[in-house]
Amino acid sequence: MTRMKSRAASSASSSTDSGLTPVRTDFLRGLFPGDALLTAPEELAPFGTDASRLAAMPWAVVRPESAEQVRELLRWADAERVPIIPRARGTNRVGSAVPRGGGVVVSMLRMNRILEIDPRDFTAVVEPGVITGDLQAAARAEKLFYPPDPSSARISTVGGNVSTCAGGLRAVKYGVTRDYVLGMDAVLPGGELLRLGGRSHKDVVGLDLVRLFVGSVGCLGLMTRIILKLLPLPAASASLLAGYDSLHAALEGAQAVFRAGILPTAMEFMDRNTMRALTEEFRERGGVPWPDGTEAALLLKIDGSAEGLAVDLEMLRGVVGGTRPKFLQAGTGDAEERLWEVRRAVSPAAFRLRPDKMGEDIAVPRGRTTDAVERIHALAAERDLCILCFGHLGDGNIHVSIMHDAEDAAETARAHAAKEIVFRIALELGGTISGEHGIGLAKKAFVPFQLGEAERAVMARVKAAFDPHGIMNPGREPW
Amino acid sequence: MTRMKSRAASSASSSTDSGLTPVRTDFLRGLFPGDALLTAPEELAPFGTDASRLAAMPWAVVRPESAEQVRELLRWADAERVPIIPRARGTNRVGSAVPRGGGVVVSMLRMNRILEIDPRDFTAVVEPGVITGDLQAAARAEKLFYPPDPSSARISTVGGNVSTCAGGLRAVKYGVTRDYVLGMDAVLPGGELLRLGGRSHKDVVGLDLVRLFVGSVGCLGLMTRIILKLLPLPAASASLLAGYDSLHAALEGAQAVFRAGILPTAMEFMDRNTMRALTEEFRERGGVPWPDGTEAALLLKIDGSAEGLAVDLEMLRGVVGGTRPKFLQAGTGDAEERLWEVRRAVSPAAFRLRPDKMGEDIAVPRGRTTDAVERIHALAAERDLCILCFGHLGDGNIHVSIMHDAEDAAETARAHAAKEIVFRIALELGGTISGEHGIGLAKKAFVPFQLGEAERAVMARVKAAFDPHGIMNPGREPW
Repeated sequence: MTRMKSRAASSASSSTDSGLTPVRTDFLRGLFPGDALLTAPEELAPFGTDASRLAAMPWAVVRPESAEQVRELLRWADAERVPIIPRARGTNRVGSAVPRGGGVVVSMLRMNRILEIDPRDFTAVVEPGVITGDLQAAARAEKLFYPPDPSSARISTVGGNVSTCAGGLRAVKYGVTRDYVLGMDAVLPGGELLRLGGRSHKDVVGLDLVRLFVGSVGCLGLMTRIILKLLPLPAASASLLAGYDSLHAALEGAQAVFRAGILPTAMEFMDRNTMRALTEEFRERGGVPWPDGTEAALLLKIDGSAEGLAVDLEMLRGVVGGTRPKFLQAGTGDAEERLWEVRRAVSPAAFRLRPDKMGEDIAVPRGRTTDAVERIHALAAERDLCILCFGHLGDGNIHVSIMHDAEDAAETARAHAAKEIVFRIALELGGTISGEHGIGLAKKAFVPFQLGEAERAVMARVKAAFDPHGIMNPGREPW
Repeated sequence: MTRMKSRAASSASSSTDSGLTPVRTDFLRGLFPGDALLTAPEELAPFGTDASRLAAMPWAVVRPESAEQVRELLRWADAERVPIIPRARGTNRVGSAVPRGGGVVVSMLRMNRILEIDPRDFTAVVEPGVITGDLQAAARAEKLFYPPDPSSARISTVGGNVSTCAGGLRAVKYGVTRDYVLGMDAVLPGGELLRLGGRSHKDVVGLDLVRLFVGSVGCLGLMTRIILKLLPLPAASASLLAGYDSLHAALEGAQAVFRAGILPTAMEFMDRNTMRALTEEFRERGGVPWPDGTEAALLLKIDGSAEGLAVDLEMLRGVVGGTRPKFLQAGTGDAEERLWEVRRAVSPAAFRLRPDKMGEDIAVPRGRTTDAVERIHALAAERDLCILCFGHLGDGNIHVSIMHDAEDAAETARAHAAKEIVFRIALELGGTISGEHGIGLAKKAFVPFQLGEAERAVMARVKAAFDPHGIMNPGREPW
């Protein structure tokens, strides 16, 4: 048990100077020939940042192509106490892939093969660097369905999605990435390869280390192969956009849908400022679909068999129609895609209101969504800030965009202060400071608002059971 | 980190003599007054067995009514190195609640309050001793739905279901117990109370200790409160029973359903011997619903809106009708219940073939179900045994009932030998030795067939992060 004696995340170097001695560089060059090792500053820089726009220089970047290379790397890194920062497409919004403190960034993008899609087992076996959208498409070609659909799906990877337990639009009906991971190969510091879970849809043998890895943000080990569960591809889908004259009316509309026994695939909402930004956007595009005075909107998707769906869409239209919307439009096929254009336009349109954004993603218990949004609106008024609330209403997962002008120091300071209050509102309502984006570097300081000392201490001990010397993504643990 | 130095599960007493000194008894009497402490052998005996029919005498039984009592108990037990065996209704099939080696059994049945059902949050908060069927009914009264439905649901508890990650009939569409646990309070050895997860449907803060507790069979700590996710109650369901002239034809029928993009709520199958037992059973009841020569059957359930369901049932009837069944019957309401009578009759009817049963529950990748059943049939023929295969086809989770006469020593020996081969078949096909019943005492010896040394060592280290002295359900870890 000697490997447990040192504390996780404390012994790895926190120097920002390069820890790469010539001997270490030689080792890496031997293991990663040619451009599989990067050491020049101009090559390293792009690997030092992610969608958080935080940045730090890694000591080196390696690009393994096999599990054997990963094993050898982690054997060495553990012995040398070299921090390891796993990375894929860098779409992380909170700096989980930013190598602050230094270390070797491991880009998994060369391990990007879809090894297998099995239409009888309803499984996919992939390397972690596979783009999620490519997996979705490959599954679809076999009439199979990989439901997790983070908005980054076209560019982010399965490995990144699993590491962060990515959520997305379809979570209301289909759950999050965690619900689709059946098994994995993972390499631990020291080089040991664990084979966890498998291809069975049910399995109760052993502790559930598979799901423990999901959302562990590279802090336990490095996945080299992932086994995913697939579903039969629903034959059809339909969507419905409803505009309301108040947020309250929109959220009551959502509740009516659930009360009718309908579990939609997706249930998004947009608040007043979001509608204002979208109205400007669509006015410029040539036509605003909703009437003046539309202060909030719901966007719903359902899926199922082609025949059953038509019937369900009529029922849904009836239920939503009974909640006094100002505007109601349903669509399938291309018309459905146009409805989702509205949702996709939210992020770019927000910049019409103010030039800069702080984007948070709190989640609250589903029934507290109205309270949360109303309190955030009151906060915006009180602090003279432009805040948009929108997102995954069906999960209580609210994206809060605090718009501001970063060149206005006073406004930026108000935005920062408001962000902290948004977190407190989420927690006071029984929610969480992150529904899907994670903690990374950006929210690390806020974790103690949510998790107690006892819980964090157990998490650190569990990490130490995998990574006794704290080399795996130190400082970016999600607790 | 000194608390990590001792190995889990090794330091707790393995003596079967009572470890209850007078001083210890006094402590327990003080904490558990009146009949909350049992020590007389005739009172203890029922708490020493479970549905596995294995048995051992506990040192004492305690029946806490509050988390505070549980905390005090685990503070004391950790200091005294007294093994703790959590227990609820004892429906476990593998001896996970049998106190072999001695220790104090903790019956959670007095912590049986449904604390809250929230129709806006879609959550339930319960104590672990709540009967699962009672929770289902309480949810239904609010038009809400708790999907996990192990066949023991009418008698087993939520705490037991969470501890074992209970599966059940509806897992094809709705997943298993794990997929509905949002949070919990859990007391660790030493008495610390962890508050894990919460009421939000999405949350990525911290390591996922909630799901690590699910299926950990009481080896990490003792849950005192559980937060569950609920769904909107589907308005209607319908079922369809199809009989075939061969197992192969039935399994091809199942595949056709998936290929049509239908994700049924439940998809059960029954093989030749199962049909033989059912035919005898229903002949006695006055009417066999299927024609002679029905060698296998599929039983499917779908659910949804009342309007959409009628349409989907017709589609399903069309798809299944196209797979050349000998017999096809669909039903809703009472007629649907009568179809499920067939499934419920399997377990009792099996004893018409032989007087005793060894019931296993392997799972294989969904596409390997035919291979698995055919190999088990070949094994039965080769070993001159009567084996029934039936169960949760949609998950590849096959219940294998090795019928025999326990008074026939030679047949019983053949049955035992066959059981081990059934496990090997499951593993050779990429499956697991348990889809839902667990490991307990009964399958402990077979775990190394499935899990490697490295994986088991990590599990033991993770356990030690919660339970450094190995007092929690020692010897019954699921690895």
